[in-house]
Amino acid sequence: MPLRINAARLLSDLTHLSQIGAGQDGALWRVAGTKADRAGRDWLDKTMRVEGLHTRYDETGNVFSRREDTTGPWLLIGSHADTVPAGGHLDGAYGVIAAMEVLRTLHEADHPLADHVETVAWFDEEGVRPESAGGLVGSTALAGSAHVDDLVGYLEIHVEQGRRMEEGGLDLAPVTGIVGVRRYRVAVSGQENHAGTTMWADRQDAGRVAARVVAGLKDVILAVDPKGIGNAGVIGFGPGAANVVPGTASAELEVRASSDTALDDIETALEADLSRIAAEENCAAELVRVSAKPAAHFDRRVLGVVDEACRGRGRTDHLLSYAGHDASVISTRLPTAMMFVPSTGGFSHSHKEHTPDGQLVLGAQALLDAVLKAAPMLLARPGSSVALAA
Amino acid sequence: MPLRINAARLLSDLTHLSQIGAGQDGALWRVAGTKADRAGRDWLDKTMRVEGLHTRYDETGNVFSRREDTTGPWLLIGSHADTVPAGGHLDGAYGVIAAMEVLRTLHEADHPLADHVETVAWFDEEGVRPESAGGLVGSTALAGSAHVDDLVGYLEIHVEQGRRMEEGGLDLAPVTGIVGVRRYRVAVSGQENHAGTTMWADRQDAGRVAARVVAGLKDVILAVDPKGIGNAGVIGFGPGAANVVPGTASAELEVRASSDTALDDIETALEADLSRIAAEENCAAELVRVSAKPAAHFDRRVLGVVDEACRGRGRTDHLLSYAGHDASVISTRLPTAMMFVPSTGGFSHSHKEHTPDGQLVLGAQALLDAVLKAAPMLLARPGSSVALAA
Repeated sequence: MPLRINAARLLSDLTHLSQIGAGQDGALWRVAGTKADRAGRDWLDKTMRVEGLHTRYDETGNVFSRREDTTGPWLLIGSHADTVPAGGHLDGAYGVIAAMEVLRTLHEADHPLADHVETVAWFDEEGVRPESAGGLVGSTALAGSAHVDDLVGYLEIHVEQGRRMEEGGLDLAPVTGIVGVRRYRVAVSGQENHAGTTMWADRQDAGRVAARVVAGLKDVILAVDPKGIGNAGVIGFGPGAANVVPGTASAELEVRASSDTALDDIETALEADLSRIAAEENCAAELVRVSAKPAAHFDRRVLGVVDEACRGRGRTDHLLSYAGHDASVISTRLPTAMMFVPSTGGFSHSHKEHTPDGQLVLGAQALLDAVLKAAPMLLARPGSSVALAA
Repeated sequence: MPLRINAARLLSDLTHLSQIGAGQDGALWRVAGTKADRAGRDWLDKTMRVEGLHTRYDETGNVFSRREDTTGPWLLIGSHADTVPAGGHLDGAYGVIAAMEVLRTLHEADHPLADHVETVAWFDEEGVRPESAGGLVGSTALAGSAHVDDLVGYLEIHVEQGRRMEEGGLDLAPVTGIVGVRRYRVAVSGQENHAGTTMWADRQDAGRVAARVVAGLKDVILAVDPKGIGNAGVIGFGPGAANVVPGTASAELEVRASSDTALDDIETALEADLSRIAAEENCAAELVRVSAKPAAHFDRRVLGVVDEACRGRGRTDHLLSYAGHDASVISTRLPTAMMFVPSTGGFSHSHKEHTPDGQLVLGAQALLDAVLKAAPMLLARPGSSVALAA
């Protein structure tokens, strides 16, 4: 008889965690490092301290659970415990609780793989704190620690945070990789001038350059990569008066694509676009790359196992993740893959975050199925000291 | 022998006034209501208190000078005494000093028109103070006061503040009118969302709407009115994060045109453009008219006299003023006209403001010539109690 997760416990634990750090509208305020975040992790710690399981904090703040007195190696499963300000109750938390449910199911069944599965609740994925340098703090710390050598792979389940699954009628989606993300600062320098007496031809309107680049961003990206995504979230003109032609302007652009090659091509196109527009407006401009997270491509064999697990449990299709996840960092050190469950309406980072209970249960079950297939495969790898039959 | 102004005194007085409120780079900080502004007006007051002339402040802060013991009516000549922060030494000040020079020349020659000319240094034309509601404070107060009934007309000389005269090789320009100016606030409402997981088609990107409207402003205006001018000096996206699709956006637009009809047509076109773009981006948007200054069309007869005076003194052509001036307010109550001298490089509201001395002298002389022709004509008008030969 196939192993089944405890659906009632999964949903109950999710409800419990969603009450820690909740505001009146249900939005969650478990920003990494806050009291609420610590209370959430302490609750995870306490909840996993059952007979035969061992829980520990590492020095970064990640919370790990595994069977007592095991020596590994382990397949790591989990997600992050923190939220953005006014975040949702599923982003991160669902993957943590689902992983806990998988380990507890294996442990209670006394399945031989129970000794080779470890769960993690990552510290500070979101990167809200100024000192967290863009987030993924806990996974980055693990990737650079000795413990990574005790692990054979990593699996993470997460809510999609978009509408593709809902629109496509999908229950589960193996995630093939995570987009690379680059951020840029556009800095334009023109000539501040009287907005009435300076004729169009005499202007060096820095604001027009920034507005045209922002307005054109979508077309520039799509011309290079039909699956590319971008955003202009910040803009400003100086000196900022209705009757003064802007002498300076700035904007922040973000670009996401499935490969670093695509990101390079988009960057080249953006630079050309900015140069052309700046020349047309008699301004000087530069595109400064502020940050770059490389694209992640998940392990083909692990992805194959996840695909099999998903197909066995519902309607499924492969997706690329347009949001960053700890799996992206871990994939640089370990065979890694992810799976998504749908986000109703695509809402995320919001109290409107929602996934139907049935799909939450289906996802946790598929994660267990994937662990049951992936762990033996990964433990049997050359160089691994353990071999177990599926 | 024709009357001639005292060129040395004109230039010396200009130099003197340009030292009151000057910063290290020569920029002037005589913002209305500041100590430096008061010191400037006090110096004008003192300078005009010569034998036979009388100077007074009105309750608004305008400084008037005329011959003692005259009963009017008077032709008013002048400009404003205040500057923008870090302004130039000619914007306003030149017209004040030139008017003073004209009255002193008439007074010293004991010309019969000396009894019928009054000079003014307007208070707060620039409108930098929050309470000044867009400026033109002194002229607006006069236009609503009893004293306006003692006046037969108004003449003002000013620096162009643009490059048209320099580029056209002009020394002097009769000004046919002043553009109307309307300011708008563009307010866009979309849906704040995750910049990675929200696909292009699912977005309600308020920032794209604002950027597209700002980028398209020039084309919209020029399609309606080839002489129309506009500016987008302020823009902002909310919440203002690189990885969040803007849920709100705002911009401030300014439009200038030679007639209120043209302004109406541009407004209609801007509304249509904003509606179209907002619909394309699945956002709601509104164009709120924040202020409207009507276009001014100067008196044809006074303009004819100014034209004659300018043609007698240098290369000349008619111009429309794209900057606001006190003459615009006064023209609603009195026969009014203006003339411009060139601005080297078009610089204004800047320490780089400059006009060659020769043209400053030529302008003051042309103002005197215009007063000598306009005053008899205006004083002889039906309803006027005075008639004097030119």
